[in-house]
Amino acid sequence: MGTHDWLADRPLPLALTMGDPAGIGPDITLAAWARRRTEHLPAFAVYADAELLSDRARSLGMDVPLAIVATAAEARQAFDHALPVVPVRLRAGVVAGEPDAANAGAVLQSIEQATADVAEGRASAIVTNPIAKSVLYHAGFRHPGHTEYLAALAEHHFPGLRPHPVMMLAADELRVVPVTIHIALTEVPAALTQALIERTIRIAADGLMRWFGLARPRIAVAGLNPHAGEGGAMGREEITIIEPAIAALRRVGLDVTGPYPADTMFHAQARAGYDLAVAMYHDQGLIPLKTLAFDRGVNVTLGLPFARTSPDHGTAFAIAGSGRA
Amino acid sequence: MGTHDWLADRPLPLALTMGDPAGIGPDITLAAWARRRTEHLPAFAVYADAELLSDRARSLGMDVPLAIVATAAEARQAFDHALPVVPVRLRAGVVAGEPDAANAGAVLQSIEQATADVAEGRASAIVTNPIAKSVLYHAGFRHPGHTEYLAALAEHHFPGLRPHPVMMLAADELRVVPVTIHIALTEVPAALTQALIERTIRIAADGLMRWFGLARPRIAVAGLNPHAGEGGAMGREEITIIEPAIAALRRVGLDVTGPYPADTMFHAQARAGYDLAVAMYHDQGLIPLKTLAFDRGVNVTLGLPFARTSPDHGTAFAIAGSGRA
Repeated sequence: MGTHDWLADRPLPLALTMGDPAGIGPDITLAAWARRRTEHLPAFAVYADAELLSDRARSLGMDVPLAIVATAAEARQAFDHALPVVPVRLRAGVVAGEPDAANAGAVLQSIEQATADVAEGRASAIVTNPIAKSVLYHAGFRHPGHTEYLAALAEHHFPGLRPHPVMMLAADELRVVPVTIHIALTEVPAALTQALIERTIRIAADGLMRWFGLARPRIAVAGLNPHAGEGGAMGREEITIIEPAIAALRRVGLDVTGPYPADTMFHAQARAGYDLAVAMYHDQGLIPLKTLAFDRGVNVTLGLPFARTSPDHGTAFAIAGSGRA
Repeated sequence: MGTHDWLADRPLPLALTMGDPAGIGPDITLAAWARRRTEHLPAFAVYADAELLSDRARSLGMDVPLAIVATAAEARQAFDHALPVVPVRLRAGVVAGEPDAANAGAVLQSIEQATADVAEGRASAIVTNPIAKSVLYHAGFRHPGHTEYLAALAEHHFPGLRPHPVMMLAADELRVVPVTIHIALTEVPAALTQALIERTIRIAADGLMRWFGLARPRIAVAGLNPHAGEGGAMGREEITIIEPAIAALRRVGLDVTGPYPADTMFHAQARAGYDLAVAMYHDQGLIPLKTLAFDRGVNVTLGLPFARTSPDHGTAFAIAGSGRA
């Protein structure tokens, strides 16, 4: 169920974005290439400034030869003996830990170029290094986040598409999709609608079929309330919203069951019964994921016309270039 | 950290209530006695009808000799070769799986007698078998639940005491106390007050010192919102309610920290840093507990003038007498 597995079988290499050059993106990229054999990593090309990578390698005491390529499609042959780089020029010199708005254009260009290559069949999926939104805002970036920016780029490459990105956290032990994410707990009940639950689960099911090779994913849906409301005794959202959404999804042939009491959904025997858990809110899904697989989860964005994963952490400016990433 | 351990060191035997005689209470009681050696169980006496126990043993194909005792205090010597029974007469014959209001009086008498013995120093703690509230209501029972009934009995034995029962779920991996429990998720934010959080944590700390031998328990408190609100960006309860409660508890010398993002509180390394996690609502605490220790958690009631534990399940009428309990 791990991410490496499903990415490893793809015919084309992955396109890895630069992320913020002053963050830990370059460190992670160099470390990933260095561990390509022991971790059985699939081939990838990083869309980044070559000088940034060789400088960072030097300060980390690593010996990483670079191979300049035009797109990720050319990365496979080089990957074994050198880190394939699709060059994206930075405007300003980089000091690890000190983000600089002068390089915001290059950060965005890396994402745009990687997206174009995956959209046009020159890479199998996009893997994004962390960006610092506040730095990009200074340079005129107007999207609420990384994922929304990728959705806008997807629309550019596939006109008429209205992508609805869905976040999935995946580890060997568990895959989980929260229906609502970064909102206060008070706002969760009002944000949950039957339409949102249906749309989220349809996109998740489609992603599991398309990218994870599951012909008919088994999807288990959590209730919102303790004991899934216990027949309406402790909240009625299960009856008014969640059950109708599940019924509608079953009518179109999806293997969706629930709503289940969330507390008994995540022990080993319960997890054996489904391929994806759907949580109603952030902590309901992320507590079991991080309890079981604290630092092994990856963030997969479904609902885009291409596969995208990202690490489940930020730029970590404080440790960039230190070797602790 | 297991419950057996802290109960095993007590000088007196435990008082085990009958629970609903048509439920799995008798089955569990017989099985517990049969496994007293392999599971290193502390001595106990069950406050129940002797005929019920011998009938149930027969239908389960078990050979369990009974020893009639006057109180739990006499149970230790008998316990090795027979199940000690403090007799509580049933009024009607029992068919496993078919609760009968005619026996409600005996169910309550078992609880009252066990409570009296623990309150007056003839038993070290009370362990309750599951009851069916609906059956008891027919017989005039007027308490919202088992725990509230025990609190009322405690007040009877210790006049002037105003017990505030606090539920703790405990397993080897984790101890957790939810501040709010069986209410709809929508009602959680309004139910959380600084006073309730402070009172709950004071009682929990006191219970850990008194019954679990922890001189200065380390208590980690979860936030209510994703990322514990991220400085107010996703909900303000951390700032307005939880942080002030923690500050007040620290001022009186308790080792209380947080609020922490709930999703990163329950992996092994995080758990090593505290003795008790405090959750703001049911699923936030019970998801990690049951993910880590699905069927090994026990329910401990703190805040009573005596220790009480109960299994984390109901009467299970459907499997009573079947040997599947």
